[in-house]
Amino acid sequence: MMIYADNAATTKMSETAIKAMMTVINESWGNPSSLYSHGQNAAEALEKARKTIAAQIGADPREIVFTSGGSEADNQAIISAAEAGKKNGKKHIISTAIEHHAVLHTLEKLKKDGFEITLLGVHENGIVIPSEVEAAIRGDTCLVTVMYANNEIGTIQPVREIGGICRRKNVLFHTDAVQAAGHIPINVKDDNIDMLSASAHKFHGPKGVGFLYAGKGVRLTSLIEGGAQERGKRAGTENVSGIAAMAAALEEANEKMAENAARLTSARDRIIEGLKKIPHSALNGDPVRRLPGNVNFCFEGIEGESLLLLLDDRGICASSGSACTSGSLDPSHVLLAIGRAHDVAHGSLRLSIGEDITDGEVDHIIRSVGEVVSYLRGFSPVWRDLTSGKKEFIL
Amino acid sequence: MMIYADNAATTKMSETAIKAMMTVINESWGNPSSLYSHGQNAAEALEKARKTIAAQIGADPREIVFTSGGSEADNQAIISAAEAGKKNGKKHIISTAIEHHAVLHTLEKLKKDGFEITLLGVHENGIVIPSEVEAAIRGDTCLVTVMYANNEIGTIQPVREIGGICRRKNVLFHTDAVQAAGHIPINVKDDNIDMLSASAHKFHGPKGVGFLYAGKGVRLTSLIEGGAQERGKRAGTENVSGIAAMAAALEEANEKMAENAARLTSARDRIIEGLKKIPHSALNGDPVRRLPGNVNFCFEGIEGESLLLLLDDRGICASSGSACTSGSLDPSHVLLAIGRAHDVAHGSLRLSIGEDITDGEVDHIIRSVGEVVSYLRGFSPVWRDLTSGKKEFIL
Repeated sequence: MMIYADNAATTKMSETAIKAMMTVINESWGNPSSLYSHGQNAAEALEKARKTIAAQIGADPREIVFTSGGSEADNQAIISAAEAGKKNGKKHIISTAIEHHAVLHTLEKLKKDGFEITLLGVHENGIVIPSEVEAAIRGDTCLVTVMYANNEIGTIQPVREIGGICRRKNVLFHTDAVQAAGHIPINVKDDNIDMLSASAHKFHGPKGVGFLYAGKGVRLTSLIEGGAQERGKRAGTENVSGIAAMAAALEEANEKMAENAARLTSARDRIIEGLKKIPHSALNGDPVRRLPGNVNFCFEGIEGESLLLLLDDRGICASSGSACTSGSLDPSHVLLAIGRAHDVAHGSLRLSIGEDITDGEVDHIIRSVGEVVSYLRGFSPVWRDLTSGKKEFIL
Repeated sequence: MMIYADNAATTKMSETAIKAMMTVINESWGNPSSLYSHGQNAAEALEKARKTIAAQIGADPREIVFTSGGSEADNQAIISAAEAGKKNGKKHIISTAIEHHAVLHTLEKLKKDGFEITLLGVHENGIVIPSEVEAAIRGDTCLVTVMYANNEIGTIQPVREIGGICRRKNVLFHTDAVQAAGHIPINVKDDNIDMLSASAHKFHGPKGVGFLYAGKGVRLTSLIEGGAQERGKRAGTENVSGIAAMAAALEEANEKMAENAARLTSARDRIIEGLKKIPHSALNGDPVRRLPGNVNFCFEGIEGESLLLLLDDRGICASSGSACTSGSLDPSHVLLAIGRAHDVAHGSLRLSIGEDITDGEVDHIIRSVGEVVSYLRGFSPVWRDLTSGKKEFIL
């Protein structure tokens, strides 16, 4: 048995996505930039995918640029806003302490280039406070970038409000929607979004492909120079089969969204209730404004990696946070941002369940986590100090 | 019937590559950065692919960085050398007039950043002259970048000699091997190469994936910031299925290389002999030092686009040059660099045949091109001027 509960790290490709991919690989494998009919077939597959994706988020097809994934899209969005800002003497960017490293590391790079970066904190439930965004906007602010939903603790941000503030203040607004796309409803116009990044493999599409939405009037800087693909915004032969698969996956995810979200939310909340019964445990993030499939807990006196390995032994794939930072010994920057102590942040568990989860699997997860936590605490010197009163419980 | 003779634009994925891709999609679809065994399966697939690819070009696995394609690899190689050069006050780069736009446009960007770019010319057969490279190297040269084989006229460059010069002069040497990899033998150590770019879809792998070889001691700059994937050199979840497919495709291409090259060279030379018989036609590039599958001709009095469309009607997929620049009205910079006049460069035809080409298809190509050229000349005012003596024949 394998219960895959790490869908925030990556998802299994859906049959629909695989079919769309194979159709292109077998039938429309030409170069979409070629003039002959076989190339034009590929160009048509590409433009069909662009239309589908645009329709899923309320955009115009001309506002979609295909990228190699969410990280590239994040990088391109931020660099583009920075380049445009620099030309107008605006070198201030606002973001939050809980962004993905694709955003944070790009901002760090810009800092070295003379940009000033304001990283806003969050509520203890992990929600960004719109009035703080408004207060941080200055005359030289060229970009606000706030993620749509957090990859670790699953909190859904007040994107529409933040976007509205940016619009009123005439500042570009980008959102990293890598965890949100295909999971919760997104409409770039209603949500006042100027730029949005997404990644196919987070919604049952393939790895290595994503897209950047950039509204009309947003000037994109090309990260990859070369041919005139993507209207000069992104060089390199398009990954047509991957793009077609991404479009099929997003369309399917959106069609099934309401149904999936209901099932996921119910399973998620059962798991949360179950894990809350573990002594000295705490839910990370907001109990309501969170992604339907996201559970994130801290357990006092536990070392995260051992927890994961023992759960793996019991057939449960989970993570302690972002897969992108696994191997790092630092505690999660997101958990620190919501006020968790270093020690506690080390004992975190993220379960991002899949749409096909069964009641029996929910039970197995609750039971296994409880047993493993208890087992590990038996060996933990920190737990011994806590229970003997040498150290104080926080959770 | 479709004769696909545009393999320089893209190739059909091989069955071997599709199988490798599907194995990962079905069995090792986890995130390679995840700790649990399902993630580690993906990590193993990734590292197996890295080993395979490294072995194909005589590199060490740690010297391979996976990218989204050849353009990204070219960009990263050049930007990396430039960044390193800048730190040492070295802001001069040497390249050639016949590079792919992924190289040329990146160099143009660097020019705006204060770099000085020397673009060397080529022999009339399209070969770069090593002594000219040597003469162009200065104290402040931080990079020489010369393609391994040209994408339009197929000429194979004296990479080993150029690399040897760079090594003696202690200058980094990068080669865009997008057209060479899998088609002609490459060994980065023997060839004195510091950095090499390749793209999977040019050797029957998938689109949207490529790699950059960077020898030990070469400091790479990350174009995409974020997670710690690819040892910090390229953020974003790796396209594991695409990478596995690329490795399988390259291994297969190399295994069959001698056999394929013999068949292709024979077919290529038959086509060249056949097309030479068309009056006022000329082969572009070197007759011997060229890619096994590449044929490139100019025909006087012909407009390239019409030629392609009529060949398409006859089931032949061909191009007038790079697919990346199709739609552009400018004549090929490569044909201009080998001294073709503007008028003549507009009438070019590139046939890049595939390994499965039959004798009958070779005959059909020769016959069709002859007929179509003759037909088009019947309508061509330029041809009328040429035949009536108002204008002089060049070819």
